[in-house]
Amino acid sequence: MSIDLTDPAGYRFWIEERVRFADLDALGHVNNNTLGVYFEQGRVAFLGEAFASDLPWTVVVARLVTEFKAELLYPATVRVGMRALRLGNTSATLGSAIFHGDRLIATQEAVSVIVDRHTHRPVPVPGEVRSRLAEHMG
Amino acid sequence: MSIDLTDPAGYRFWIEERVRFADLDALGHVNNNTLGVYFEQGRVAFLGEAFASDLPWTVVVARLVTEFKAELLYPATVRVGMRALRLGNTSATLGSAIFHGDRLIATQEAVSVIVDRHTHRPVPVPGEVRSRLAEHMG
Amino acid sequence: MSIDLTDPAGYRFWIEERVRFADLDALGHVNNNTLGVYFEQGRVAFLGEAFASDLPWTVVVARLVTEFKAELLYPATVRVGMRALRLGNTSATLGSAIFHGDRLIATQEAVSVIVDRHTHRPVPVPGEVRSRLAEHMG
Amino acid sequence: MSIDLTDPAGYRFWIEERVRFADLDALGHVNNNTLGVYFEQGRVAFLGEAFASDLPWTVVVARLVTEFKAELLYPATVRVGMRALRLGNTSATLGSAIFHGDRLIATQEAVSVIVDRHTHRPVPVPGEVRSRLAEHMG
Repeated sequence: MSIDLTDPAGYRFWIEERVRFADLDALGHVNNNTLGVYFEQGRVAFLGEAFASDLPWTVVVARLVTEFKAELLYPATVRVGMRALRLGNTSATLGSAIFHGDRLIATQEAVSVIVDRHTHRPVPVPGEVRSRLAEHMG
Repeated sequence: MSIDLTDPAGYRFWIEERVRFADLDALGHVNNNTLGVYFEQGRVAFLGEAFASDLPWTVVVARLVTEFKAELLYPATVRVGMRALRLGNTSATLGSAIFHGDRLIATQEAVSVIVDRHTHRPVPVPGEVRSRLAEHMG
Repeated sequence: MSIDLTDPAGYRFWIEERVRFADLDALGHVNNNTLGVYFEQGRVAFLGEAFASDLPWTVVVARLVTEFKAELLYPATVRVGMRALRLGNTSATLGSAIFHGDRLIATQEAVSVIVDRHTHRPVPVPGEVRSRLAEHMG
Repeated sequence: MSIDLTDPAGYRFWIEERVRFADLDALGHVNNNTLGVYFEQGRVAFLGEAFASDLPWTVVVARLVTEFKAELLYPATVRVGMRALRLGNTSATLGSAIFHGDRLIATQEAVSVIVDRHTHRPVPVPGEVRSRLAEHMG
């Protein structure tokens, strides 16, 4: 795939996260799994309505590929960019990156599956999610 | 690479983790990033001495590929299997899997880089880590 | 009140928690709020059935008084002792302490209120919780 | 003590925290211990320089009294107000409260002890902290 996740120009949807003191681990930097929390927050904001509890479907993550490029220290406010990479029948692949100023901290590719909220079985990507993702594909 | 991370027979190093109520997210299951914490705990135990604070080097993660295969609910105690996949000059790739009984929950491949504790620049994998990993390669 | 929360002889209900590397903060010790997670885990185990999702009531915490007595480092396995201190109409006060070996790490007093699962309004302490607590009062 | 921690007019130092999806627990609301993280973030910001790693002293918490007044749901941005309550020779008591709009979520009283960074033994409250606290006492 030719999309470069490290290029901020590839993202038109952004959220900000401020690093909390609690996000640091014993090595004194933001822990890998906490960067995962920032990416999750990006997904939740990007897919928005998918997390409303009155919908018949929700989103689960099937596969994450995360690359860690630079250490993140406290204090800092970072930006998380979100975009769509691929759109399948019951799943979508999202691309994202965390930047501190111009410095790239990490990238993540997330294969997300749309599932029935009760049975947790895959269902076709709903129209409203499909159009959201299509806007952020190019 | 032909090593099957989903096969428990491929692991000879194991730790146990008991799911905490706090590990659950709003969907009522163990959050993806918390599974990442279990994998991290496996790495810390597997590389052991690498986290002793009096050593001149430490380990940072450069890349994680995580596959989520089944939901994990509370209460549960899981086992995390750890093995080596590849050994480079300044890095090592670890393979791991989380099982709840016989049920596979997730697998993870982790590219770990050995760095100088102070400069955080890559250094050759120390002999003691190299032999540890070689034992868990086959 | 004359009950001494620092005395291990006062507890007949215990759980164990193993410190995770992720429980450490940037100061290199187990964070205060993570000690709070260990206490929560003690409460969840002690009140057990209260967290079963098919019951009409659940437990919320109204007040916590926590005293931190000693630092907790990694690695360690701690024991959390739980007991009842007071039993009211719609609430119960629990006492607890975390020990690392013989060393007292922290104590906590927790005023817990029984609420209707849906309205979140206080309801009388159910009989099964009442008898559980009465056993651990003396 | 006659200071009312529930009154926003008592605070002149504020931080904001945006609730993350990861801050929710299995009950679907912000977990008690995560409210503890917001209070900790308030303390870190309020005492600021105390966490700079090149100082000979740091701050540890000896006692926390937390009252939970209302549930906090996602999404939300809250404000954490911080003030000083008492100033001793080697310790200070801070008062704080979390508000969501005008709604009080929780209050916390924190006895904090100034300790030598290396020996972790109490030392007199440094002048710069003392004057900071004195400004927020009235």
